[in-house]
Amino acid sequence: MSDTVPVPADLDPALGEETYRLDRAHVFHSWSAQAGLDPLVIAGGSGSTLWDYDGRRYLDLSSQLVNTNIGHQHPVVVAAIKEQADTLTTINPATANLARGRAAEAVLRHVRGPFSKVFFTNGGADAIENAIRMARLHTGRAKVISRYRSYHGNTGVAINATGDWRRLHNEYATGHVHVFGPYLYRSEFWAMSPEQECERALHHLERVVQSEGPSSVAAVLLEAIPGTVGVLVPPDGYLAGVRELCDRYGIVMIVDEVMTGFGRTGHWMAHDRDGVVPDLVTFAKGSNSGYVPAGGVVISDDIAATFDERVFPGGLTYSGHPLAMASIVATIGAMEDEGVVENAASIGADVLGPGLAELADRHEVVGEVRGLGVFWAVELVADRGTREPVDASVMARLRTELLERGVLPFVAENRLHVVPPCVITPDEARRGVAAIDEALAVVGAGA
Amino acid sequence: MSDTVPVPADLDPALGEETYRLDRAHVFHSWSAQAGLDPLVIAGGSGSTLWDYDGRRYLDLSSQLVNTNIGHQHPVVVAAIKEQADTLTTINPATANLARGRAAEAVLRHVRGPFSKVFFTNGGADAIENAIRMARLHTGRAKVISRYRSYHGNTGVAINATGDWRRLHNEYATGHVHVFGPYLYRSEFWAMSPEQECERALHHLERVVQSEGPSSVAAVLLEAIPGTVGVLVPPDGYLAGVRELCDRYGIVMIVDEVMTGFGRTGHWMAHDRDGVVPDLVTFAKGSNSGYVPAGGVVISDDIAATFDERVFPGGLTYSGHPLAMASIVATIGAMEDEGVVENAASIGADVLGPGLAELADRHEVVGEVRGLGVFWAVELVADRGTREPVDASVMARLRTELLERGVLPFVAENRLHVVPPCVITPDEARRGVAAIDEALAVVGAGA
Repeated sequence: MSDTVPVPADLDPALGEETYRLDRAHVFHSWSAQAGLDPLVIAGGSGSTLWDYDGRRYLDLSSQLVNTNIGHQHPVVVAAIKEQADTLTTINPATANLARGRAAEAVLRHVRGPFSKVFFTNGGADAIENAIRMARLHTGRAKVISRYRSYHGNTGVAINATGDWRRLHNEYATGHVHVFGPYLYRSEFWAMSPEQECERALHHLERVVQSEGPSSVAAVLLEAIPGTVGVLVPPDGYLAGVRELCDRYGIVMIVDEVMTGFGRTGHWMAHDRDGVVPDLVTFAKGSNSGYVPAGGVVISDDIAATFDERVFPGGLTYSGHPLAMASIVATIGAMEDEGVVENAASIGADVLGPGLAELADRHEVVGEVRGLGVFWAVELVADRGTREPVDASVMARLRTELLERGVLPFVAENRLHVVPPCVITPDEARRGVAAIDEALAVVGAGA
Repeated sequence: MSDTVPVPADLDPALGEETYRLDRAHVFHSWSAQAGLDPLVIAGGSGSTLWDYDGRRYLDLSSQLVNTNIGHQHPVVVAAIKEQADTLTTINPATANLARGRAAEAVLRHVRGPFSKVFFTNGGADAIENAIRMARLHTGRAKVISRYRSYHGNTGVAINATGDWRRLHNEYATGHVHVFGPYLYRSEFWAMSPEQECERALHHLERVVQSEGPSSVAAVLLEAIPGTVGVLVPPDGYLAGVRELCDRYGIVMIVDEVMTGFGRTGHWMAHDRDGVVPDLVTFAKGSNSGYVPAGGVVISDDIAATFDERVFPGGLTYSGHPLAMASIVATIGAMEDEGVVENAASIGADVLGPGLAELADRHEVVGEVRGLGVFWAVELVADRGTREPVDASVMARLRTELLERGVLPFVAENRLHVVPPCVITPDEARRGVAAIDEALAVVGAGA
């Protein structure tokens, strides 16, 4: 249980005050209006527990931004970072580096298919950047189809501002086409069953491919399970259907595993459960739990061969950064040794799945619960019949109620995402569900 | 002298072989055709020296990708990374973090002007991304003017592939206009003197602003000194002229200090010597010597205020990453304590400047030498009259000759960039110049 994790004895509340003061004075925050921010101060953590400088403890049901799959401050990963820091922190990506080679090998152990090369990046966004670059150059086609309900990162302009030759062959921001994906609870296809949703979503995708001109479509890009937009677990057969469609039209299938990869779903890769082999797989967060910024693209041999004799016009200073690479090697090793992925699967099957389903039965404000492993969404609605989302004030209240109960939540639009570290224990997960139960009772009564 | 840096006694040549084998089997490299690569294996380093697993030493005149300003494995920075690794490796950027606040404070100590906020990123490219985002939203204008001879990073598409609301207000890849900047040696303006080059480059920029429509131009984006494209030190008055022009037309001035900032030029910021105050300043490499991937934007109070009540539609998982932030605090602190920026200035004034000028006198193959601090370009020409660049085989030979002399060079097109760490000693710098002298004699004789 989280309560058994000891909080360090030497916490200094004055540092908490300094932290807050410096943040408000000097730190500009992501995705926010800056004036009203009141950030939580975190001093440290261990496993699924975090604490502040006053010794107040939180059970982390967020994994921060759904990245600390191995939990906070895993000793094996921390030790590996320190050891690599003593050896060599950084080096030109054009050199050969031992940690980098071993990280590639470790990643490749968990991506099934004809993959033998990895291109490393600083995070998920530039993994997507480079996957799209590869797909477009490999096919000689321009368009990329992705989904409206998706997030693939926040970069989109630096290469266009660049003036030198590295801009050429890289001005890719046009030709993006968006489609709807399967999401039965809010179907765009008037579907009544998972089978129908799947079939119609594939039909819709194929009609867009045909209408855009199949010979102009380089790639279909999709999160294995769309994450921040709602943990939209696809119906059986959807990814396999996309694979078939890509094969039929010679389109590269890019599966984005940035949030879903490395244990989140109780599988190493979320697409493992769909039995498909993508052409390119992007990863970041879970690969090293974000202990050092890193991401990458796993490249099929077929696509890699395109760049054997032809210059790949992409790169970055910190590609395959030794410190990040050492943390990937240690993270994947520890996950293998300690059965972390298996734990995520059983937490989903035995605790979170049944526990959250019970809350859905009990609380009128819950419209749907969906997920697997340690990757769940609880969708809150003002009306179960119309499925109208609750408004933002309800979610703000829910967040406050959970924080007051020592639980750190992940809230997105009208949803609570229950996304703890993969190492969460059954007792911790039960305690999380109990806190959500109480918080739902409060907001349900007020709604 | 570099030769005095002890190479560890326990180097294992078998690890060198493993490193090379894994690299060739599994690592996809930046900016390259993959088949013919023969990467250098590096085992470790200290200060301006690197070594391989066979104990072979290199004097680093590249600073890798011009990022290790403080040299390799600076003990203060390594210790800070290890200490932060023990405390907290990663945390949601929405929280307040002590290392992050202190890093912002440290960066702000060295950027003169009305700046009190920093937005942290994973590197230089996403610093540029966010600076452009801020400029466009602050002005309500669409276009960005940058230079043909420039490099601002390699991202340009992920947000366009994204489907959810975070794409909206972010599809910025259009509206990029490129101009020529000052470069007297290869003037685009038929200029005969630095004064004329400056005046004409400013006239050209203003004519493009007028022709594009001043009320449509959000930003002028420029490297303080264009780096990889040739260490193009602007003539006196150019940056001040751009500042005036931006003021006249209400345009945001973004100065890109990714390569030039934090000591490279013998100043904390390269634009310090021009006496200008930009509106946004981007940084990365030198801020922590790349020991952990990081970058950021320093934001003028005026622009920051735009996002007090309005959501800033940008962000990233590892913004203000604690491990990266701790390395920034330690790097800037050590640079202050040890006079690292002052050392870079005197190395430039006393050793590299005069030493490279002498080589230009002596070797017909040298067309021009330019630079300051530890930021120099030696431009090689086949003919001093026509200034025709030497071809790639000459540069490849130069690289080989330098490597054989235990010097790790940075080669770009027809130029040798002499860009050692800011901590290089006078003796090391002299040894570097002597090796370049010998290598130029070889390639000059063969050209």
